[in-house]
Amino acid sequence: MVKKLNKVIIVSGGMDSVTLLHKIVQDFGAGNIYALTLNYGQRHAKEIECATWQCAQLGVNHLVVDITSISPLLKGSALTDDVAVPEGHYEDENMKMTVVPNRNMIFLSLAIAYAVSVGANEVYYGAHTGDHAIYPDCRPIFVERMNAAAEVANYEAVKVVTPFDTFDKGDIVVLGTELGVPYEHTWTCYKGQEKACGKCGACTERLEAFGKAGRTDPIDYEV
Amino acid sequence: MVKKLNKVIIVSGGMDSVTLLHKIVQDFGAGNIYALTLNYGQRHAKEIECATWQCAQLGVNHLVVDITSISPLLKGSALTDDVAVPEGHYEDENMKMTVVPNRNMIFLSLAIAYAVSVGANEVYYGAHTGDHAIYPDCRPIFVERMNAAAEVANYEAVKVVTPFDTFDKGDIVVLGTELGVPYEHTWTCYKGQEKACGKCGACTERLEAFGKAGRTDPIDYEV
Repeated sequence: MVKKLNKVIIVSGGMDSVTLLHKIVQDFGAGNIYALTLNYGQRHAKEIECATWQCAQLGVNHLVVDITSISPLLKGSALTDDVAVPEGHYEDENMKMTVVPNRNMIFLSLAIAYAVSVGANEVYYGAHTGDHAIYPDCRPIFVERMNAAAEVANYEAVKVVTPFDTFDKGDIVVLGTELGVPYEHTWTCYKGQEKACGKCGACTERLEAFGKAGRTDPIDYEV
Repeated sequence: MVKKLNKVIIVSGGMDSVTLLHKIVQDFGAGNIYALTLNYGQRHAKEIECATWQCAQLGVNHLVVDITSISPLLKGSALTDDVAVPEGHYEDENMKMTVVPNRNMIFLSLAIAYAVSVGANEVYYGAHTGDHAIYPDCRPIFVERMNAAAEVANYEAVKVVTPFDTFDKGDIVVLGTELGVPYEHTWTCYKGQEKACGKCGACTERLEAFGKAGRTDPIDYEV
């Protein structure tokens, strides 16, 4: 039997998934990577442009799938609904408003379908420790249980792999710096403005990550 | 804390899910049911008309979500792709062509998101023993593992419930007859023609189920 080398990766265009993309291109070669970007009507659509730019630059297969039609199923989140985007840290109670119902189970189920279609044995996504407090579907226990389901959902098992599950965002910037990731083409801000706001939870975490790694973030901020 | 009584059900418009719909309307009341129909570009789009008719008749909330944009992720199935629909029994090797990559994980992940949005604690779907041989994502082990994931994917657990997991299709018709299900408004044939073909795997199983229950199927067949 031929060993499956193809890998699917969920790439949002944010700094975490883009760093992971660069890492697996180094590990497996660009030709074996199938990057998947899911547009679910998030406010930060600039992420998608960044994902496209990075994949083109690396010579990776890239599929953008518009799943905005599922928005009636995703009520109550500040990222998809008519709710103000909160400021502060991920640990804060008000950041719960940025939780999109069942988002990563949806994303992984689509990525696993894609893996079956392209003959890939693994799906990568960039969950890290900074996500664990506020996003239940980024925690190791969730990934472990999705893996158990993905083992039996199709004729061949697909594995969900989260290489950053012991990394914080600072560690990700350190690795990305080693890999030469062009962070000027990544987007993190929850608001969809011309420049990153510098105040929302996502910007706050990003700026701290670059600070921790001893680097200056190359993107422009409003403040 | 208020006990959650809302239930989400995945209704295709086929005889299994429609029977389950009638059952849970009897158990919980129509006002607590949120029926979800997912259009993934299946050839048997008549199913959707049947789902709509049944929900309207019962006075159940019904949402049809078009997810045809995900079709690039679902390659190689006779139900979604440019592949001939096979004839015969579910157990036959050639029925594997009707397997849609990771379909029920996708369906359940969307239904669970909807459950979180409408405050439902359970998601129902009509998997039964006749599906087990050919569809890995209808087997009890898959449902059990999805339940483990659904327990930790969101702030509140959502349970996946499959009341027909010890029923065969004949048992379903027997129950549906007791419940007075109008089976003339259900659609099973894999082909999207005016009348059911009577030959494809789905028609074969349906006709056998009615035979086993000692009833005549009320829909028209080509043969």
